[in-house]
Amino acid sequence: MNALIVYAHPEPQSFNAALRDAAVDVLEKQGHAVEVSDLYAMDFKPVVDRRDFLTCHDAEHFNVSLEQRQALAHGGLAADIASELDRLQRADLLILQFPLWWFGMPAILKGWIDRVFVSGAVYGRSAMFERGKLLGKRALVCVTTGAPVQAFGPDALNGTILDLLAPLHRGVLAFTGMTVLPPYVAYHVPYAGAEGRAAMLLDYRAHLQGLDAMAPLPMPRLADHPALLEGGKRPRAQ
Amino acid sequence: MNALIVYAHPEPQSFNAALRDAAVDVLEKQGHAVEVSDLYAMDFKPVVDRRDFLTCHDAEHFNVSLEQRQALAHGGLAADIASELDRLQRADLLILQFPLWWFGMPAILKGWIDRVFVSGAVYGRSAMFERGKLLGKRALVCVTTGAPVQAFGPDALNGTILDLLAPLHRGVLAFTGMTVLPPYVAYHVPYAGAEGRAAMLLDYRAHLQGLDAMAPLPMPRLADHPALLEGGKRPRAQ
Repeated sequence: MNALIVYAHPEPQSFNAALRDAAVDVLEKQGHAVEVSDLYAMDFKPVVDRRDFLTCHDAEHFNVSLEQRQALAHGGLAADIASELDRLQRADLLILQFPLWWFGMPAILKGWIDRVFVSGAVYGRSAMFERGKLLGKRALVCVTTGAPVQAFGPDALNGTILDLLAPLHRGVLAFTGMTVLPPYVAYHVPYAGAEGRAAMLLDYRAHLQGLDAMAPLPMPRLADHPALLEGGKRPRAQ
Repeated sequence: MNALIVYAHPEPQSFNAALRDAAVDVLEKQGHAVEVSDLYAMDFKPVVDRRDFLTCHDAEHFNVSLEQRQALAHGGLAADIASELDRLQRADLLILQFPLWWFGMPAILKGWIDRVFVSGAVYGRSAMFERGKLLGKRALVCVTTGAPVQAFGPDALNGTILDLLAPLHRGVLAFTGMTVLPPYVAYHVPYAGAEGRAAMLLDYRAHLQGLDAMAPLPMPRLADHPALLEGGKRPRAQ
């Protein structure tokens, strides 16, 4: 199995880096090939713009998904996008490793999705959810929080972690056809202490060792929404 | 009243730009002062890193919120962050104008939040929600979608738009104390046609003209979660 870990943290000594390294170790010991995209180390460009494309579909009006389709069809994707898309396409398992910043991904990781999840390559017209082009791949989110576990839950201040991650789980990973595995959440990291962090690393290793037995998160199916198939409307062309 | 519109779209002729201009016009006609942060035109840097700070709290381990607090206390914020933070702090109304990309904000806008929502300036220890430092400000999200309105809803493929926007509404805007007004959503923009777009612009103008009469979205209160106040835990220090 090929695994891709996309890691987004500015501090090489961070606990996020330790979680990344634990995942590399567990997966390699299982005999898998692991690639890591360290977005900060790569100085990854997160902003979608015309520099993303060597081709040009419309010089007057910049429409992201139409430019993506033109570039995809004519080898016009910028080198960094093409390289990351290759990694994504050959991965059987995608792990997104990041700290929860403002209830979401750091901008550099959101930009990896905005730029690498190319229209026509990972989704298209009616190619979403169980028809998505990344069907058959599995995806796992591993996130750290500064807030304590009791800040998350149905009646807690921040709501449930699954609700916070729903736009990513449902709108990115399941949307493109991936099977979404339960996330691993390391809570209250800045206050966990050395023992707490060591325990979480062991817990994450066990989580990864149990992936094959893990029930994926329930996700919607396009087939249950036939009205959306008529016309084959395409998302994010605005 | 001072209004700040933060606008994030790569195409100057986009419908997002038309919505931005409609808001400027409505608010100025009401006698308000309006500032616009056009993140693409500014070539805004969305990635949090050490270049954000002229000061240094810890040269060995980069902790974003601790560096933010150090910089805030000693005039060490990078010029672009300080300038945007000034705009945010003098705004009575914040409007975020963006296309829904992958069920969320474009990376350049997420990065504006990651960098400008400085620890100690917009939130701190127990300064969240009704104790947040942006208390008294109102916030409005105006978003465009490529998907049709029937793709959104409790039983729809994409879920409800309020669920998709919850991390932003609750985790960013309400978290810092802002009153969150109902969003304006322009659906199916690429397929709306000239008449449909003109109708949405009028609809948005009416939405803005009705702001003062509009009931804000219900948000949690820190006072209802007293356990979190003990110790005054601080978010996103990981």
